[in-house]
Amino acid sequence: MIDLRSDTVTQPTDAMRKAMARAEVGDDVYGEDPTVNRLQEMAAALLGKRAALFVPSGTMGNQLAIRAHTQPGQEVIVESKAHIVRYEQGAAGALAGVQLHWVVGDRGIMTAEQVEAAIRPKDPYSIPTGLICIENTHNSGGGTIYSLSTIEKIRAIASKHKIPMHLDGARLFNAVAATTLPASTYAQHFETVSFCLSKGLGAPAGSLLVSSDTQLIERARRFRRMYGGAMRQSGILAAAGIYALEHHVARLKTDHDHAKKLARALQQIPAVRIAPQHVETNIVIFDVPDPRLTPADLVSQLKDHGVLIHAIGGRSFRAVTHLNISAKQIDEATEAFARVLN
Amino acid sequence: MIDLRSDTVTQPTDAMRKAMARAEVGDDVYGEDPTVNRLQEMAAALLGKRAALFVPSGTMGNQLAIRAHTQPGQEVIVESKAHIVRYEQGAAGALAGVQLHWVVGDRGIMTAEQVEAAIRPKDPYSIPTGLICIENTHNSGGGTIYSLSTIEKIRAIASKHKIPMHLDGARLFNAVAATTLPASTYAQHFETVSFCLSKGLGAPAGSLLVSSDTQLIERARRFRRMYGGAMRQSGILAAAGIYALEHHVARLKTDHDHAKKLARALQQIPAVRIAPQHVETNIVIFDVPDPRLTPADLVSQLKDHGVLIHAIGGRSFRAVTHLNISAKQIDEATEAFARVLN
Amino acid sequence: MIDLRSDTVTQPTDAMRKAMARAEVGDDVYGEDPTVNRLQEMAAALLGKRAALFVPSGTMGNQLAIRAHTQPGQEVIVESKAHIVRYEQGAAGALAGVQLHWVVGDRGIMTAEQVEAAIRPKDPYSIPTGLICIENTHNSGGGTIYSLSTIEKIRAIASKHKIPMHLDGARLFNAVAATTLPASTYAQHFETVSFCLSKGLGAPAGSLLVSSDTQLIERARRFRRMYGGAMRQSGILAAAGIYALEHHVARLKTDHDHAKKLARALQQIPAVRIAPQHVETNIVIFDVPDPRLTPADLVSQLKDHGVLIHAIGGRSFRAVTHLNISAKQIDEATEAFARVLN
Amino acid sequence: MIDLRSDTVTQPTDAMRKAMARAEVGDDVYGEDPTVNRLQEMAAALLGKRAALFVPSGTMGNQLAIRAHTQPGQEVIVESKAHIVRYEQGAAGALAGVQLHWVVGDRGIMTAEQVEAAIRPKDPYSIPTGLICIENTHNSGGGTIYSLSTIEKIRAIASKHKIPMHLDGARLFNAVAATTLPASTYAQHFETVSFCLSKGLGAPAGSLLVSSDTQLIERARRFRRMYGGAMRQSGILAAAGIYALEHHVARLKTDHDHAKKLARALQQIPAVRIAPQHVETNIVIFDVPDPRLTPADLVSQLKDHGVLIHAIGGRSFRAVTHLNISAKQIDEATEAFARVLN
Repeated sequence: MIDLRSDTVTQPTDAMRKAMARAEVGDDVYGEDPTVNRLQEMAAALLGKRAALFVPSGTMGNQLAIRAHTQPGQEVIVESKAHIVRYEQGAAGALAGVQLHWVVGDRGIMTAEQVEAAIRPKDPYSIPTGLICIENTHNSGGGTIYSLSTIEKIRAIASKHKIPMHLDGARLFNAVAATTLPASTYAQHFETVSFCLSKGLGAPAGSLLVSSDTQLIERARRFRRMYGGAMRQSGILAAAGIYALEHHVARLKTDHDHAKKLARALQQIPAVRIAPQHVETNIVIFDVPDPRLTPADLVSQLKDHGVLIHAIGGRSFRAVTHLNISAKQIDEATEAFARVLN
Repeated sequence: MIDLRSDTVTQPTDAMRKAMARAEVGDDVYGEDPTVNRLQEMAAALLGKRAALFVPSGTMGNQLAIRAHTQPGQEVIVESKAHIVRYEQGAAGALAGVQLHWVVGDRGIMTAEQVEAAIRPKDPYSIPTGLICIENTHNSGGGTIYSLSTIEKIRAIASKHKIPMHLDGARLFNAVAATTLPASTYAQHFETVSFCLSKGLGAPAGSLLVSSDTQLIERARRFRRMYGGAMRQSGILAAAGIYALEHHVARLKTDHDHAKKLARALQQIPAVRIAPQHVETNIVIFDVPDPRLTPADLVSQLKDHGVLIHAIGGRSFRAVTHLNISAKQIDEATEAFARVLN
Repeated sequence: MIDLRSDTVTQPTDAMRKAMARAEVGDDVYGEDPTVNRLQEMAAALLGKRAALFVPSGTMGNQLAIRAHTQPGQEVIVESKAHIVRYEQGAAGALAGVQLHWVVGDRGIMTAEQVEAAIRPKDPYSIPTGLICIENTHNSGGGTIYSLSTIEKIRAIASKHKIPMHLDGARLFNAVAATTLPASTYAQHFETVSFCLSKGLGAPAGSLLVSSDTQLIERARRFRRMYGGAMRQSGILAAAGIYALEHHVARLKTDHDHAKKLARALQQIPAVRIAPQHVETNIVIFDVPDPRLTPADLVSQLKDHGVLIHAIGGRSFRAVTHLNISAKQIDEATEAFARVLN
Repeated sequence: MIDLRSDTVTQPTDAMRKAMARAEVGDDVYGEDPTVNRLQEMAAALLGKRAALFVPSGTMGNQLAIRAHTQPGQEVIVESKAHIVRYEQGAAGALAGVQLHWVVGDRGIMTAEQVEAAIRPKDPYSIPTGLICIENTHNSGGGTIYSLSTIEKIRAIASKHKIPMHLDGARLFNAVAATTLPASTYAQHFETVSFCLSKGLGAPAGSLLVSSDTQLIERARRFRRMYGGAMRQSGILAAAGIYALEHHVARLKTDHDHAKKLARALQQIPAVRIAPQHVETNIVIFDVPDPRLTPADLVSQLKDHGVLIHAIGGRSFRAVTHLNISAKQIDEATEAFARVLN
């Protein structure tokens, strides 16, 4: 099977498995897991911050950030198709008690003007704006990258209004690979950053919440216990994360090349509508408008030809490249598409 | 002062004060206040429902409905400028733990297509949609009225997806006065309806949450205690509400006439941009684009001329007619506008 | 009917009704209700504090205090039978997200040693203690009074640990009447105090949250909107409150005399177990251990004899004296008890 | 170092590491991790239930159960020193919005009479009781075991009142090892059971929530995403869990023998107060009343002699035996105690 549903499906490599098997571990609830501690230091250094916290998932990284930055009853500005809006089961409201203020971006990218318009006036009747969240790269936007200039403009607005900023960097290293800008260049504009070790980096699980505000990280550590994310000898997972950061960042470029190749190939298929120039990283979004083929049927027929993709609503589909997808498999997938759609 | 800031500023009339002074009362927490009970029966009958609950405010009516219909972690579909979104201090997230799914309507009016597009697919990854809320008339939309046909189409969508509907009818009787449709004709399409006795109806305080689902009303009663809205001899306030329902519904037409008159007069002032045909009830929204006059300055200069209005963001302003505004005062207000803006 | 179920059942007097009927009012959401403002100033002055907020109920007063003092995930120390524990529908957890740390008092009275033992150590594993609540007089304890000396000792503990204190003074003026200590003498030891205008003071509804921390009161005002407790021309109710504070405080002594008289009379009935010395204010708690008479039967038979009381669990009952109970009615109630129980 | 602070500090054995290194994995968010699926089936079978869910921690297992069983505003009956009360950062209130109803047990063991007394009457004024939680073995009670007879009596009460029961079985297998009763014999009395793979079983992380109510498990799965506990290739951790269940259950008896041996040795030291008959499993709680030695000093001096224990408040201390503590180390620890305390 050529599994293009998500970059979350990657299998740990043999070398990564070895790293896990020999990881030095301790009780991380006591702060005594040396491998977790090392990963947290690496993550902080990589992002130019002072402290980091290892958490089980990207959702927990985002939610601890929201909880640590805000008070119940505040608003959090976020793009309308962000992971925080769509795929965290309403946790921002259910757990942190905040209201998400939706901004409709262009393929997930909000402008500074939109963000400023979303900040409520500071009066006793309006809801206080407590946080601005940016997702970079933006998953549902199609792996789109926030330009540094857009981030800087939003940062200026945030600073003017004294509102902190959180970067949902689940796929931050895809932006890094695509732009060759260091992760810290992005991170410098945010009070907190979360990024995932799974997804493109290929570790089995785990994310990091990173900040220079060490008190916030200690608050987040307390919330990590509350949310059930404090594990014991989590150095096993952290070892995979260290391996991923050391060996799998540079290779993300390959995933991007594969995605672009796939996009150009799909463009050749008359039934497909796609704008290959919109493929900025490892996510390929395209439409198959023909009403004779239901989305479920297309997914199913592709599966019969050995290719897995996701229908994502309407007539749209998503294919994602990753560690376990080779150039050859891109060719094979292309053939499968052609066979099903021609 | 000609106070056009809101229809919430009305003073109780002498007759209404007399009704309050002689109200028969009891302990409403024990369900023993005869005047509250009578008001609740009137409200239920008026809306063609089985049961009603008296609450201190429109916000509590909406919030008890949200809480009684939903579970934390669900989504509630609501227009992006609704009272529930803007003026309830984020209660939907903070108290009910739900996520608001914003739909950007046209002057507050959502279409059935928009509502359907906002319903999440029923799968383990998507957030369950728990409620659809409609605000009629829509305050921030400019007192706009949902047509019965739009409501029917949204109802059909809701029924198809088995999602309940709540009507924020804070100003439902303005829609009733404008269309001459009975309140029950609107209410029949909703599992719950809340409406306010203050605002256009001119009572000092109090709202009703109405439903044919008596168990839901009992749940809401429990939540009313939890939220701190259970009062004792609240028949005092309920008496004003009964008086308002008996004497102040028909006269809302006058407020609408005043609003239209004001709108037409404002249209004559070159500095003002207004579409009088958009004034459907008692709310007049207009712009004064001239950058030489800040919104705060305009509000302040009008105040010096004896007229109070609200700046509502950007270059927009709101004037609201009500029980305490006479035809003569509309003329005086018009003159004040002319003097300040010409 | 001689209604001894609660002091919440009182009817407003004619003079109080007149005060309501002629109350000068305005829109309290805009802070423009002169009667509400006057009541708030009176309340603050009476308790020796800087600011006060009018709220619909004692529950809302307590809950806004809890919400304004604490963060979700903190603990609030409270006696195990307090109103906050028993009769606020779990609001502390459901709305403020805090955990109540139960201390089992002696007839509702916690000692300083118990309170200190309930404060968690300040470490990353323990739950932060965010607030200590005292209910004075203590309803379920039988209208018991916290001695000033006990309050001072608890205050010293609280200050040592830098934990704020809230006084649920729903019946604070019963303590004032019984001890002749000014309300401010109690209030000085608390960051916030709530007290009720209904109950012994005989107003139809309304409570006040009082504090010298004006920022906290502003926060509470925001939460009042969120919880649905912001009303418009609430001066109607505030007028009753002002009347109650001016005319009904001194007379609470009479209720206490009636309660003691009733207790002594009940002691003469062999079927009753009661300790009259435990009747400190207007609440009389007693047992009828005879298993041949179910609590429901006793309540029902007393009702047939024109007396209403509450069964409060096990073989215990509660009778409460108030504004509408005369000395003669105490005698009549005593006779009814004797007839039913002998 | 002889680390007796907790059984959470265990290191994975070489065989367990090998099991992790070769684990077959998939994306567990898609339900495609074969090792997680196998562990879930094993866990369900072992406890005689239909379904199970792998979660990162015991806290998450308990909290998902509370959330899945209850509604915000309900009460959960729980012993006053339970893990849910003390060590989950107030999550029951902060995340599930419930109120914990504390029952003070004898060394953590509640009686059926106490539980029944804690159930609120079913009336509109009382808080609905939504769940009864039992912790077996009870950590803060000193590793105490609920007898089957006590559980059966509590179950009868729960069934009579139609209230579900959750077993916090973080250390259920210690009860199993001590009594030789199968885990399913305990589990049959509970709607949900959580148990930990770390602690005595020696896996690095992970717990299971088990139930025969498959819809509840699906609800819990949704909440697992919301709480941030959904991981991707978590089969790595699940492989350790399978290994632990297959190889580390029987050996818990050894930990109990070590604990009893240590307790008897401590009894010989005059400075120590201990009741060895209270040591039922692997937890040894004892007092050192001498005021000349602060708890911090004793902990520190023992550390200097190579032994780690926890001070747990007052003059009490806790030592826990586990996988990495040999009989010889118990002797060495005993010597260290003797040297420090004599």
